[in-house]
Amino acid sequence: MDAAIFSVGTELLMGDIVNTNAAYLSKELAVRGIRVLHQYTVGDNVDRMTRLVKQAMEDHDLLIFSGGLGPTDDDLTREVLAEVFHLPLSFNEQVWDTIVTYLGKKGQTDQISENNKKQAMVPRGARILDNPIGTAPGLWLTQSDHHAILLPGPPREMTRMFVEQVVPDLEPLLEKKMVSTYIRFFGIGESALENLLKDVFDSQTNPSLALYAKSGEVMMRVTASGDSPEECQNLIDQLVGQLNARVGKYIYLIGDQSVAQKETMLFDTLAKTLLEGNISLATAESLTGGLIASQFVSIPGISAIFLEGLVTYSYQAKAHLLGVDLGLLEKKGAVSPQVAEAMVQGLINSSGARAGIATTGVAGPDSDSNGNPVGLVYIATAFDGQIIVKDYQLYGDREMIRHRASLHAVNQLRNMIENQSLVDV
Amino acid sequence: MDAAIFSVGTELLMGDIVNTNAAYLSKELAVRGIRVLHQYTVGDNVDRMTRLVKQAMEDHDLLIFSGGLGPTDDDLTREVLAEVFHLPLSFNEQVWDTIVTYLGKKGQTDQISENNKKQAMVPRGARILDNPIGTAPGLWLTQSDHHAILLPGPPREMTRMFVEQVVPDLEPLLEKKMVSTYIRFFGIGESALENLLKDVFDSQTNPSLALYAKSGEVMMRVTASGDSPEECQNLIDQLVGQLNARVGKYIYLIGDQSVAQKETMLFDTLAKTLLEGNISLATAESLTGGLIASQFVSIPGISAIFLEGLVTYSYQAKAHLLGVDLGLLEKKGAVSPQVAEAMVQGLINSSGARAGIATTGVAGPDSDSNGNPVGLVYIATAFDGQIIVKDYQLYGDREMIRHRASLHAVNQLRNMIENQSLVDV
Repeated sequence: MDAAIFSVGTELLMGDIVNTNAAYLSKELAVRGIRVLHQYTVGDNVDRMTRLVKQAMEDHDLLIFSGGLGPTDDDLTREVLAEVFHLPLSFNEQVWDTIVTYLGKKGQTDQISENNKKQAMVPRGARILDNPIGTAPGLWLTQSDHHAILLPGPPREMTRMFVEQVVPDLEPLLEKKMVSTYIRFFGIGESALENLLKDVFDSQTNPSLALYAKSGEVMMRVTASGDSPEECQNLIDQLVGQLNARVGKYIYLIGDQSVAQKETMLFDTLAKTLLEGNISLATAESLTGGLIASQFVSIPGISAIFLEGLVTYSYQAKAHLLGVDLGLLEKKGAVSPQVAEAMVQGLINSSGARAGIATTGVAGPDSDSNGNPVGLVYIATAFDGQIIVKDYQLYGDREMIRHRASLHAVNQLRNMIENQSLVDV
Repeated sequence: MDAAIFSVGTELLMGDIVNTNAAYLSKELAVRGIRVLHQYTVGDNVDRMTRLVKQAMEDHDLLIFSGGLGPTDDDLTREVLAEVFHLPLSFNEQVWDTIVTYLGKKGQTDQISENNKKQAMVPRGARILDNPIGTAPGLWLTQSDHHAILLPGPPREMTRMFVEQVVPDLEPLLEKKMVSTYIRFFGIGESALENLLKDVFDSQTNPSLALYAKSGEVMMRVTASGDSPEECQNLIDQLVGQLNARVGKYIYLIGDQSVAQKETMLFDTLAKTLLEGNISLATAESLTGGLIASQFVSIPGISAIFLEGLVTYSYQAKAHLLGVDLGLLEKKGAVSPQVAEAMVQGLINSSGARAGIATTGVAGPDSDSNGNPVGLVYIATAFDGQIIVKDYQLYGDREMIRHRASLHAVNQLRNMIENQSLVDV
């Protein structure tokens, strides 16, 4: 089944609101194996909308609309669809009663106008979708093999109507079951990964694969379709096994939709390891300036193991908080492997944590006073008495360098704890 | 001039990402008086994309694309547009050199593949738009009265290219001159501000006004059109004078496009004050966990005054790093005005900074063990021997509460230093 999503509203075309409805509906359809070929955003022009809907019917079995069901003259979705589907509109007393009752409950009977009657007009044979939290009812129109589902624009009303009244009747129309798994990679770019797996990408049809560039890492979606969830899962397990054998050293997390949400899951992954092992953590950040600490603090329950975070941006702070020798700082410069090591050593001494991260580097825009280039970063990690110091040459603007350094730092400690070989970058 | 926005990418059609590019571009065009009639989201199918582009050319003078300029076979925007505009593609050595140099700087020469050569293919006569932070260059194609502007998909790359290389050459194509000023508000919500200024919003046509809800604050765009920049500026100055008189106490920054970029400019504004006054700063963050420090560290030159940042999430860290009395912590709980005050006092004592910020509060999802509700936050600020402690009841999820607390903290110190009356919230 192929679908098109229509979003109706001038406020979208003006850029006054971001179109979250299209993303929501697309995802809900995709996970059910319905392919979304197009998303269209249209305004309040009857001719342009009519032409686009007619054309979309050539390619798509399912058209889902959000918006344009309101009481004003600009709200045209109902009228356009009734016309295109050749279903005459007529006034529906029951819908009208519901609207009047709803506005009455909200104490807005004074706001009931002739305009609202527009919202009680129903195309012949259309199914009415109740709207318990708004005035605009939804509509489900069917004509031969085409379905048009008209939903209200406000996201709360739209999602509730979709989940409660559309999904239950949509699923029986589908032939196949779909299951997706998500894999997170670190230490390799999108195109390099695609090259390494070119034969897989070229030959693979079920499960299907998709790569997503996240900020500093890559995510892959693996989606299988089959007659049962078990069949899908089997197909996925086979493919994941292959991927693990070939590019496993870049994989740090495999899981369901919950693994797909964030730009990075590295912090969550390390936090899980630390919490499960009851390993206390402290951080000393120069280059990253609190980025690492703030990501950890955003994880509920982290206070059990995150002892303290230090932002030691200045020489003074490195000496005062971490006991780094001022002579060393002056001799080697703040951006040096020796200072990174001294930072993490001082951090462990002072905090008593079992694990520690220290970062120092040049974020730019200019190289530092010792001539170290922009993007040169030293990361020192400590775990149970051992220390590893690594250098990285990162690229991008100030923000990107700091962000990427924070990911490398977390990944370095994660690898150290898991006692895996470090991923070369 | 009428425009269509094309967003290209399967990840949009799968609902894996929300289309912020379309909203951004639509808004940028709208403020310049360019009408956006349609937004289209398309995937990686040549035929469907070709047909839609051809059709869009009937209604629109300007087509702006984002996405589909990558190195993979799925990236088709360049090829489709070259075909529709009848401009043969040829390999451009200079573009190729730029891509190789870029990947070289990132230390990813091993990731340069034949695929990347695709990105160096340029339609005949097309203007090349440099991409300083990515591999995909943009393209500007012109054919009789039609313009097609092809931008990369990642929002950071797209917006930078648009602002720096598209806007300067787009504006001369328009009939009227436009000048915009941006005003940042803190301490008042979008609808409250709109209510306060209802008469202005209702009557105002030139300059036009638009409100933007940022995360935790509000921005207003004031755009005047006229025959000359001076005429526009005059209109703006008059309106800004009115706004200052009516809602000036919520305004913290007025300026050009540079004021509009970030979610908040509060950190930049306070940093400017601190740097100009050579006022040293230290931070002690419990609730905000490094968010404040990391925002300051992102400002170039801040090391001159930012002495140190402490993330004191645990009791141990509050006692160890700030000298907060463990008895006080146990008696009053970490979320208390007394502990906030002791934190900032300890911070100033230990760091020797002239100005300090300390945060403590309940981020949720549950109330703390002392029954303090989610969102209760105490912020203590210190400046030249004085301390102010204020309580805030913030709303939202864990992330929002922490983010908003960081804004209030910075605003509280800003007000304290500027010796203004605190804005009630």
